[in-house]
Order: sequence, then C-alpha cells, then structure tokens
Amino acid sequence: MSRQPKDLNDLFHETLKDIYFAEKQILRTLPKMARKANAGQLSEAFEQHRMETEGQIERLEKVFELIGKSPRGKTCDAIMGMIEEGKEVMEDFGDSEALDAGLLAAAQAVEHYEISRYGTLIAWAEQLGLTDAVPLLEETLAEEKRTDVLLSKLALSQVNTKAAA
Amino acid sequence: MSRQPKDLNDLFHETLKDIYFAEKQILRTLPKMARKANAGQLSEAFEQHRMETEGQIERLEKVFELIGKSPRGKTCDAIMGMIEEGKEVMEDFGDSEALDAGLLAAAQAVEHYEISRYGTLIAWAEQLGLTDAVPLLEETLAEEKRTDVLLSKLALSQVNTKAAA
Repeated sequence: MSRQPKDLNDLFHETLKDIYFAEKQILRTLPKMARKANAGQLSEAFEQHRMETEGQIERLEKVFELIGKSPRGKTCDAIMGMIEEGKEVMEDFGDSEALDAGLLAAAQAVEHYEISRYGTLIAWAEQLGLTDAVPLLEETLAEEKRTDVLLSKLALSQVNTKAAA
Repeated sequence: MSRQPKDLNDLFHETLKDIYFAEKQILRTLPKMARKANAGQLSEAFEQHRMETEGQIERLEKVFELIGKSPRGKTCDAIMGMIEEGKEVMEDFGDSEALDAGLLAAAQAVEHYEISRYGTLIAWAEQLGLTDAVPLLEETLAEEKRTDVLLSKLALSQVNTKAAA
C-alpha cells in the first residue's frame, strides 16, 4: 500500500476484507460440522447455513464493487481462533453425546462475531452514505440472527437434553 | 488428564476455562484501549468495563468453586485473535479520526463473543442442575449486553460522525 489507512472509508474496506475472509472460512468448515453432528436437525441447520453463506459471500462481493474495490480477504485471526476451538471440540468430544452441544456453541460464537461485524459495517455504510450497501448487509445480518435463534432453539429443545442424559 | 473429556460436565468446565482466560486477557487490554481512545466517553466506557470485568472474573471463580474445580484458564484462540485485530487497528489507525470507530468495533466483537459464551454456559448450567451458577452467569451476561448497547449508542452518537468528518 502506498499509504497508511486513515479514515472511515479505509476502516470499512479493511473490515469488509476481514468478514469476507471469515465467510469463506466458514463456508469451508460448515460441511465438516454437518458431517460430524449427531442430530439430524443440527446437521440440516449447518447445511442450510452453508447455502446461505454462499449468498452472503456474493453480497459482500457486490459491496466491494460498490466501493470500487476488488473482492479480497485478509486473514481474520478471530475467526481462525473460533474455527480452531471448533476443531478442538470435534477432537475432544468426537465420540461423546456432548459433541452436538459443543458444535452448537462453537457455531453460535461464530454467529455472534458475524452479527457484531455486520452491525458495525451497516452503521459505517450509513455514515459513509453507501446507501446501496446497507440493504445488502442488512439482509445478511437478518440471516445471521435467524441462524442464531434457530441454533438456540435446537440447543434448548434437543441437544443439551441428550448431552446430559 | 487421565481421560478424554466426555460429557456436558466436561464441556461446561472446558468452556468455563476458555472464558476465564478470555476475561483475564480483556482485563489486561482494556486499559490500553482506554488510553488510546480519543473520545472521553469511550475512554470512560472502557474504564468502566474494566472494573466490571474484575467482578466478572470473581464470579467465574465462584462458578469454578461450585463445580469443585480450581480456577484455571486455557488459551482461548478466539479472544487472542480478536485482541490481535484490536492491536492492528491501534497500529494502522493510531493517528486517525477513525481510531475510535475501530476500537469500538473491536470491543463490540469481543462483547458479542462473550454474550454467546455466557448464553451457552447458562443453558448448560440449567441443564446440569447447577442452579447456584445460573444467577452468577446471568449477572455477567446482563453486564455484557449493557456494555454492548452502550458501545452501540456511543458509535451512533459520536464516534462515527467524527470519523467521517
């Protein structure tokens, strides 16, 4: 780069690269989680969210276009850490009834991270007058929130009961 | 360890160690963020949350006691990643008007991670019949949510306006 990033436009762009990288990592990880999950409903929820994530990545690419940048990710240490924790759960609880509870918790941590990132991006897009970016980001935020609610319901209804049995 | 962790009790204990480590890292990081923040209100919010975090660590120590374990953390890759991202913001935007917006966003990512962890721990504590742990964890969850709301208000009212100026 020819200069240090300095203003909210740069911060928006950096954060967009961060969540773009994160979504791509999530896209790669969800099929593994779907295969590992014992409960059919949880496996389906992961598979459904994998499909949603594809659409979310496309929306991010549109936002890159709107700010005149090519879509490019940058390593997001936070998501790498969360995925690492999910892997540890799969290793340590792989043959346990508590595996699904652990997978659910890992997925919810990721959802909450994304909810915070999209909330931030929406506030900045509004501030920067990127009015066409706002509805794209809002659509994704709504999906992430729905996924979190679905995972909470699954956690309460089924997975924890089984894990403690 | 003499055996692989296998049930929801183990998962609860592992996740407690994870958030205990995370809170201690946050406690170390908040004073730096308070010093860096340009806006007085943001600096105060970080300082206030540092004091809250001390109480949250004490509550976690009580929960360890309730399950008959000594308080011990284990490296939480997710929080390390988020703190690393916060450091990058401080380095890249250190002399920028957008610094506060970046610090706020980093803090909200952390808050959301914690909200998800405490929500999970409460669900598991209820499931495991750890009735004395539930109100301790709920008190902290309420604090984290209040902090997130406060940061959102600061973001909308002040910091972003300044960053885009």
